[in-house]
Order: sequence, then structure tokens, then C-alpha cells
Amino acid sequence: MNVRFDRIVRIQAAMRDNGWIAIVILNHDDYRYLFGTDRAQPRAVIPFHGPPELIAFTGEEPELRAALADGKVHVFGSVGGQIHDVVGRLRELAAAAPAEWAVDGRYKVGIQQWFHTPAFLIDLFKTVNPGIDVVSSDPVMDPLRMIKEPEEIALMTEAQRIAGLGMDRARALLRPGVTAQEIATEATYTMMKAGAEGTSTPIYVNFGVETCMLHGRLSPAPLETGQLVLIDLTPTVDGYCANLARSFVMGEPDDRHAGLLATYREIVATVRGGMHPGVTTARLDELAGGVCAAHGLGERQVYGIGHGIGLRFEEPPASTIIPPHKNLPLQDGMTVTIGHTILAIPGFGGVRFEDVYRLGAAGPEILFDYPIDPVVSA
Amino acid sequence: MNVRFDRIVRIQAAMRDNGWIAIVILNHDDYRYLFGTDRAQPRAVIPFHGPPELIAFTGEEPELRAALADGKVHVFGSVGGQIHDVVGRLRELAAAAPAEWAVDGRYKVGIQQWFHTPAFLIDLFKTVNPGIDVVSSDPVMDPLRMIKEPEEIALMTEAQRIAGLGMDRARALLRPGVTAQEIATEATYTMMKAGAEGTSTPIYVNFGVETCMLHGRLSPAPLETGQLVLIDLTPTVDGYCANLARSFVMGEPDDRHAGLLATYREIVATVRGGMHPGVTTARLDELAGGVCAAHGLGERQVYGIGHGIGLRFEEPPASTIIPPHKNLPLQDGMTVTIGHTILAIPGFGGVRFEDVYRLGAAGPEILFDYPIDPVVSA
Repeated sequence: MNVRFDRIVRIQAAMRDNGWIAIVILNHDDYRYLFGTDRAQPRAVIPFHGPPELIAFTGEEPELRAALADGKVHVFGSVGGQIHDVVGRLRELAAAAPAEWAVDGRYKVGIQQWFHTPAFLIDLFKTVNPGIDVVSSDPVMDPLRMIKEPEEIALMTEAQRIAGLGMDRARALLRPGVTAQEIATEATYTMMKAGAEGTSTPIYVNFGVETCMLHGRLSPAPLETGQLVLIDLTPTVDGYCANLARSFVMGEPDDRHAGLLATYREIVATVRGGMHPGVTTARLDELAGGVCAAHGLGERQVYGIGHGIGLRFEEPPASTIIPPHKNLPLQDGMTVTIGHTILAIPGFGGVRFEDVYRLGAAGPEILFDYPIDPVVSA
Repeated sequence: MNVRFDRIVRIQAAMRDNGWIAIVILNHDDYRYLFGTDRAQPRAVIPFHGPPELIAFTGEEPELRAALADGKVHVFGSVGGQIHDVVGRLRELAAAAPAEWAVDGRYKVGIQQWFHTPAFLIDLFKTVNPGIDVVSSDPVMDPLRMIKEPEEIALMTEAQRIAGLGMDRARALLRPGVTAQEIATEATYTMMKAGAEGTSTPIYVNFGVETCMLHGRLSPAPLETGQLVLIDLTPTVDGYCANLARSFVMGEPDDRHAGLLATYREIVATVRGGMHPGVTTARLDELAGGVCAAHGLGERQVYGIGHGIGLRFEEPPASTIIPPHKNLPLQDGMTVTIGHTILAIPGFGGVRFEDVYRLGAAGPEILFDYPIDPVVSA
């Protein structure tokens, strides 16, 4: 455990600016960001002032108390006890907060609402805290988390390097008759041996027409000569996510294969050329669309060529999840993928090449420069 | 894809009984249950009558249309398009529904609210469908899904068998100096080679005092002689979850090790003896508590000795997540784990042995009888 009091202090300042009495952490990614570790049920309260408070069970207390130094550990014997005591703690914070933070007598608490915040937990929270207004914690957390510190870039680079090892292994297995399960098994093993904790999404290995699917899991039938292959690897290192996708052709490419592959290479090059602080993903999609149109594939474009990435597999800007994010300007220090969306001919197959970049003042820096080498001899 | 029209028809009948116009599927587990496959963004509408409707992107349409036979595929070019068209579809269903289903002019739509339903998606859904009341789909889905069909039991048994292979491999690696990462890597590889898609939770491998944690991920320091070891494996097969946990002692057990191990064996035996249709997990916890008390460990009991399992890693009864579930009576045909909660001495370590059972009319049938053999020679 490595409590990041530096980050907590900044978050508390932003919370006070917003007039929130607390942020309640229910998510792995925020828990990692603030406490430098993870657990099955990450639960903590960041009050508007004072030390952070971990929510734990009796048996866990000595370990957590030792790790948290002068912080507070709330200890409960049961889930019901946890709920009860968080309610009481929020009442205390409301009583101690400036009266002007209350709107109609109700105080605000920030909670992340992203993919891993279960809807029922938010419902339960609202039910047991009727005097609290739950708001998304994004306005406080995003400005910090979007801009990556050097140590975060180092972990993401390592994750991306490990994805490259997995892709090397996967590519070496490509031959007629190989199964997607075999490729996923061996790539996972290679990446975990190299230090990955696991993957942030299932591994996607698709053959033939199934490469049209937006992230189609594992194809059931073995690979055949003449098919497109799409492999998307997402290992994590200390919670930080990699994202490396590559397309291959098993055997000699035909004209459609070659056209899709060449177009996607050009999309990546053009979008990279247009990445600079201030640009939006909407603008990057326009650049991608121009390339598609020039190759007669304009109607095949899917929007969302890139997305933010970090301790969450998709984080702001996440235009493929939250449409208004397409208008968020990229900033110096953000980490973004390019190559997220498939370029596909329905009924035939699709391609993409996805990598992770750190956006600097002068433009994008690829975290790990993995080759694009799509033709595999049969 | 294997569309389960038999299940869909039963769900639609239950929806009509409840006066819901649709169930909106946003979850992998319901998607698997109804369509026999999975995808990265599982999205479907089950209307109160007529064929199910899949929500897909342009490039995916030919594949999905071929698979769905006479069902409907809604095709969209973007996330915004998906949202817009679902809103329109629900308006059509509301217009076609019996007027008496509306309460104050508002119609009900069921959506699962479990762990993998993101809170922001529910928020977004409510915002764009202001005339709809969102209700938990549990009252319709749970009665079907809690009672497992023979083919489901077969998949869960296979998953549990594969967990056993992973545990064999993990146990064989136990020696002073081995790391949790190495054990997780090799166990994952063994299980995926045997056919697991992956695991439904991260693998937990804990050493020493970290065995106190309720599911503590991977211990950072290598194993030492005299430490307790806790390994929890959760492979999935066709989406169905296994759950196999075992405790070990590296080297000769001391009195505290031996006491914890013997007590937990007795807990499992006693709880198994008390499992029959009609019993609640609250009652099973009482039985476990009696054993703890008899061994002087009464104050160390953590409630929640078992939980439902299937296409979700924890499903009803899930008393450790939803406290009222402790009063749900078990039924013939349910699948339940026993051994979920740790028995720990804070600052020292904890143990548990967890397996999956099918509850029959005559009592519990273990899906795969994996040995309890906790002492590992140094």
C-alpha cells in the first residue's frame, strides 16, 4: 500500500471548491490511484478534510492500519455494518461542513459512475442516504487523472511493451488450423510471465468475417488460409492498461485485404499527424473520414478513432461511450489510443491497428513502437 | 449464436404479468443466457411480445442477421444512433402496450442492476427516456436463472473440473520463494489450455497475514516456510463460473494453523449437512457460527458462508452483497458455493475451502469433488 496523500490533498481542495462533503470510492481505479494497491471490494471515503478512511472487515484491520499510517480505518463485521457506518460518517461530515454547501438542506457526495460502478450500489447508497445528493466525481477526479505523471507513463509503457510480447507470440502461432482459444491462451501466458496481472478486457481473437465485429471475443472455428485475423491485447501492469491491436492476413492478401490494410495505415498516419493539444476526437474522426473517403470507403467509417486510457481501459475522452466527449480538447500529458474503430466491409472482414500515445506539447509520442507487419505466410 | 427462444418466451410471459413493455439487456450474463454468445457491448431489447432485437453496428449486421433468423437486428452507425433508436423503439412499445400497464402515464422497462450494469448507463437511459420507469429486471429474470438446467450444470461442472486442474498446478508450485504472480500465471495457463475462457474474477493468491484479507489479489512478497496460503480460482466455461478456494500451510502446521483448518473443515461439513430446499443462508451462517463458537472462534465469524453462482460470479442468494438475500430460501436446482467467507485471526492469517454445489431435493451434490489436502512439505 502506498497512500498518495499528495493526490488526496489536491482532490480535497477541488472538493471544497465544489462544495462536496466527501468522495466515496467504490472503484478499483480510483482506489489504485489514491492507495497504490487494489482489493476485491475497494471501498473508501475521502472526506473534505482530514485523513482518508478505508472501509474494511475485522480480519483486515491490522494490515490496513499498518499501511495507512495516520489515516483512519473504519472496520465492520458485515456488509450491513459497513452501510450503517458510512451513513453515520456522512452525517458527521454534513454537520461539520459549511452551511452554504447545502442546497435545500442537502449536501453533495461525489461517486464515480463509470463502467465498474454497479447501478445497484448507487441505488442502495441513495436509499440509505436520503439527505445526500450523489453527483459524478468526474469534475474533481478527471482533471487530475487525465494528465499522467511520469511514473504512470512508465507503467503504461511497460504494459504496452508486454502487449508487444503477447502479440509476437500470437503472430508466431498464426497458421491454418490454429484456434482463437490457443492464441489467447498462449498470449495470456506470455504476458503474465512478463509481469502482467492479467488483461483489462477479454482478449479478442477473430478470424474471417468475424473481424467485422466491434470486439468479438474468440472466434469458434479454426483459422483458414485467406482469412483476416484481428488480435486485440489489453494487459495491465499495476492496474495501468495497455491496448495493442493488429490485423493480419493468413496467406496472400487479395485486393480487398490490401485496400483495407493500406487505408488503415494511412488513417493512423494522418490522425497521428493531426494530434496536438487542443484538438478534439471529433476532429480526429474527420481526419480519418477524409482518408476513408479518398479510398472509396467513406460509408464504412465508424466514429471514435481514439479514446483516453490509463487506470481505466477507456477514460475521457471516451467519445464511443459518452458522445459529448468527442468535443473534449486533448491536453498535453494525456494518454490516448489511436486505432480503436474497425474499418470493415460487412460480410467480408475488417482491420485496425491500435496503439497508445502520450500527447506532448509537440505532438504524439507512441509509448511502444510495435511494428505493423500484417502479411503472414501460409 | 444460439438464440434461446424458449427462455425468451417465458420471460415475455413474466414481463406481461408484471406489466413491463420491455427488458433492455446491457449485461454479458443475460446476453449469454438468451443468445448463447457474448460480445464486448452486449445490447438487446426484449419487447413484451415478438422477436428479440439486437443492437449492433453496421459492420456487424450480416453476421447477426444470419444468426438471429427471424429476429430483428437494429443497426446503428454510432453510439448516438443506438441511443436515439432505442428511445424510438420504446415509444413504439409503449404505444402498443395495454393502457393499464401505465402508472401516471409512465411505462415500466426492466434492466438488470447488478455489478456489471454501469451506473452511468442507467442514468443516461433515464435521461433520454423520461417517460419510462426503470425497474430491476430481477423479479422476471431471477426465477428462471436461479434454477439451473442440466446443460448449465454440465458447463458449471466442467468449469469446476478445470478449476481443479488449476489448483493441482498451483499446489505443485508451492515452495519457499515462489511468488503469487508465478502461481497465478501457471494456474491461468493450465486452466485456459483446458478450455477456460479466462477467469470471472482476478485470481487470488495470498501468503501469510495477507490471507486475512477478503479476496486480497496477489501477495507481493514470495512465500515463506510457516505461512498460510490461500488460492481462489474462478475459471469460466461458456460464461459459467467456477469457484474453488483452498488453504494450505507451507511446512509443518502449528497449533493455530491446525485449529483454523480443522474448524473450517467442520464448518463445511456442518453447513453441507444443513443444506436442503427451504433453508436460508442466514440459517447456514448460524450453523457455521455454532462450529466457530465451539472452537472458541465465535467472534471471528464473518457472515455469508455461501452464495449463488452461475453466469454471474455471485448471484442470488447473494447475502454478502444484498443483505436481505440472507432470507431467500434455497430451492431445488440452485447452484450455491459453500466456503465463501474467511475464518481469520487478525494479524496472523485465515483459511477457507470453497466449492460449488447443486442443491437437489435430497440435499447438496458437489459439482466436482476436489480434495482438501492443506499441508505442503517444505
